Amino acid sequence: MTSASPAALVPDTPAHTVDAFHRGRFWLVQPRAAGHRAGMDAMMLAAAVPSPFGGRLADFGAGAGAAGLAVLSRCPAARVVLVERSPEMAGFAHATLAHPGNAHLGDRASVLTADVMLTGKARGEAGLADNSFDFVIMNPPFNAAEDRATPDQLRKQAHVMEDGLFESWIRSAAAVAKPRGGLAVIARPEQLGALLDAIDGRFGDTEMLAVHPRPEAAAIRIVVRATLGARGKLSIRPPLMLHAETGNGPAERTEMINNGLASLFGD
Amino acid sequence: MTSASPAALVPDTPAHTVDAFHRGRFWLVQPRAAGHRAGMDAMMLAAAVPSPFGGRLADFGAGAGAAGLAVLSRCPAARVVLVERSPEMAGFAHATLAHPGNAHLGDRASVLTADVMLTGKARGEAGLADNSFDFVIMNPPFNAAEDRATPDQLRKQAHVMEDGLFESWIRSAAAVAKPRGGLAVIARPEQLGALLDAIDGRFGDTEMLAVHPRPEAAAIRIVVRATLGARGKLSIRPPLMLHAETGNGPAERTEMINNGLASLFGD
Repeated sequence: MTSASPAALVPDTPAHTVDAFHRGRFWLVQPRAAGHRAGMDAMMLAAAVPSPFGGRLADFGAGAGAAGLAVLSRCPAARVVLVERSPEMAGFAHATLAHPGNAHLGDRASVLTADVMLTGKARGEAGLADNSFDFVIMNPPFNAAEDRATPDQLRKQAHVMEDGLFESWIRSAAAVAKPRGGLAVIARPEQLGALLDAIDGRFGDTEMLAVHPRPEAAAIRIVVRATLGARGKLSIRPPLMLHAETGNGPAERTEMINNGLASLFGD
Repeated sequence: MTSASPAALVPDTPAHTVDAFHRGRFWLVQPRAAGHRAGMDAMMLAAAVPSPFGGRLADFGAGAGAAGLAVLSRCPAARVVLVERSPEMAGFAHATLAHPGNAHLGDRASVLTADVMLTGKARGEAGLADNSFDFVIMNPPFNAAEDRATPDQLRKQAHVMEDGLFESWIRSAAAVAKPRGGLAVIARPEQLGALLDAIDGRFGDTEMLAVHPRPEAAAIRIVVRATLGARGKLSIRPPLMLHAETGNGPAERTEMINNGLASLFGD
């Protein structure tokens, strides 16, 4: 990712950077120092969507819009709603869509400032109608020890995962998804149990893929994909190794995924 | 594994084979055609025990004793209790221990005919005392569609996994294990959620390792290891690929594990 700051293009946006993704095929306007800055997690989550996908997708907890735009960039017929609770981050998502470098994507994306943890009628009134999306992707807030030490309020909001948050996010995903709609979640390995519990009984044909920094190291992320109302059993896919056995650069497959040239599950 | 049938050595045992494991370092007397014949699953489960392990280990659902004896074969100071509910399979376990080829292991092993699903006082009276084992390994019965079609009663008994069986087996494991005692379970990928739920709150420092037949194929087994009373988070280890990318033979690491020359978690 390269960095630039054409402040004139987004005059009302607080201190920010404009970062290139997918080798410049789209751009992200995001907070310079505060908040949850998007990167590899968002690219891996987006890569869980099959390349031929052409429906309506919700990006839950979209932040500045990295994952959602990465889906638009790879799937030419997809439409995306960036759903973000924080008005400040939703502002960055708006700035992202307004950026001239994203003009070729902007008519397929919109921003919805809403809390995905709303339930029932309140969720629908906030703009998240039941049975209205073909796919939901989510990068729920993490609650990691290293983040607790960070006094930054925005980052805290993005990273604090309370008990039952998976249950709440995935219940909403199941409500807004159409029958046979897709779900993709990126999370930390220690969250696997809570994640599978929340998926169980709602989504099926679940596939899990672990992401390891190197072939000999423990996983740092999991990506889980599932289909609403499907009944198939959990399948564990071969993992993604970010770096190859030798050398320090990312593996070729990592580069492909990071740049929107390959999907994570090979479809 | 090679096969032979020195019936004179085990005159009271029904139709059986005597199979070499660990390149002839121990032998298994098991039913010729019926029942759950031991093989790679038992070797992988045993390989989850650290090589320096020198305590008292319970092999839950031991069958003819393959996993327990594989631990004895690799860990020279370990002692093993083969716990088996089926009197017929426990008979094979006795025949296994009586086999002359296992004379070097026999004084470190015993057979206990008991149902690991017993609870409370009944479990203790059956010979499974609380707080009495340093490690518990288990290969709980599977309930796979392909097995349901098999009319064989012995195989059915070994393979039928009822709802809550993990909960029951792991509750017993937590009861009989000493503080900081180890647990290792081999299971199918679709059982991961139930397995993690049963472990949660009892064992910690949980490590999961998926077993893939080939680098590009979905996992066929998971091996999960944990420590009683530990609080560390779930970790996902790099998977075991049974066969390498090229060629049809097993990968070198698979051969090492299958022959008791390497541990699964590298310790």
